[in-house]
Amino acid sequence: MTIDDMKRKLEGVLSSKRFMHSLGVMDTAVSLAKIYGEDVERASIAGLLHDCAREIKGQAVFELCEEYNINVDYITLTQPELLHGPIGAVLASKEYGVEDKGILGAIECHTTGKENMALLDKIIFISDYIEPGRKFPGVDEVRELAYRDLDRSIVISLDNTIRYILDKGVLIHPDTILARNFIIKETMP
Amino acid sequence: MTIDDMKRKLEGVLSSKRFMHSLGVMDTAVSLAKIYGEDVERASIAGLLHDCAREIKGQAVFELCEEYNINVDYITLTQPELLHGPIGAVLASKEYGVEDKGILGAIECHTTGKENMALLDKIIFISDYIEPGRKFPGVDEVRELAYRDLDRSIVISLDNTIRYILDKGVLIHPDTILARNFIIKETMP
Repeated sequence: MTIDDMKRKLEGVLSSKRFMHSLGVMDTAVSLAKIYGEDVERASIAGLLHDCAREIKGQAVFELCEEYNINVDYITLTQPELLHGPIGAVLASKEYGVEDKGILGAIECHTTGKENMALLDKIIFISDYIEPGRKFPGVDEVRELAYRDLDRSIVISLDNTIRYILDKGVLIHPDTILARNFIIKETMP
Repeated sequence: MTIDDMKRKLEGVLSSKRFMHSLGVMDTAVSLAKIYGEDVERASIAGLLHDCAREIKGQAVFELCEEYNINVDYITLTQPELLHGPIGAVLASKEYGVEDKGILGAIECHTTGKENMALLDKIIFISDYIEPGRKFPGVDEVRELAYRDLDRSIVISLDNTIRYILDKGVLIHPDTILARNFIIKETMP
């Protein structure tokens, strides 16, 4: 399937707002790929498809997890929206013909992050956070930082996410902590 | 060894400030034990001895971990002060004659917390945070809360600790996240 075919298919399953977000993530991922030396086509596809499962709701989420052997723990049970990454990776493979494991992995971990993220994982993760449609206090600083210090921009986005979760009083996915710890450890002076 | 013997021995290895802190944790743990139905003697001993390894520094920390088979991961390697819980549990057993596994467990996890803490673990954890010598913004609210909602007071102390770690830019121990998640999950409406 060409990227244009993927776009058409995706547009049919997402709200226009989320489709625009997906295009924004794709464009941002391409810009970052050029700076950091990632393959531009891989970044395009991963960025475009990262939310392909985002609008699956309710019981269907858990049915897909059962069908595709995706682990549902007590955190994702209470926050099923966290499962759209792993489900999205399966759909990208089965419905969009993506075979590249690196692209599928970046889609899989884009919501929580994970320990020892690959370059493409990092690009998709931060592109989702800073794409042009995102508006929240501090986004401009993180956006600017992403183009000169990818790791640092991810730590800041993770810090912000963790603070947001603390304020909401909900569960923190351990992968988010492992993602942050790993980058801090790797970039420690 | 009687509690008085333990006190004398502990006074010999801790600074007077930390010895006073230990007595404060002991007293607070006893008060909470009475409210929540924990054994008062267990709470006394665990509170008194929780920091018995706190003033071991430098290479000696890692030598003791090797000697006693205590796991040192990349987080505790960069923050060796986190190891005084596990080392303290070993010393409480070997040097203070404590055999009660529940007391040793409470000493072991008092710094990071852990998933599925026992009542005594919780009492020591929060007593360490709110004992009368502790002075920081918000401590009075957590102190008051601990006497009527132990779980909620622990979640707030964990939230505060995580925010503090984020501000400092250092690593977060996953056990701290698991401790918080578990209590929130168990007490969810």
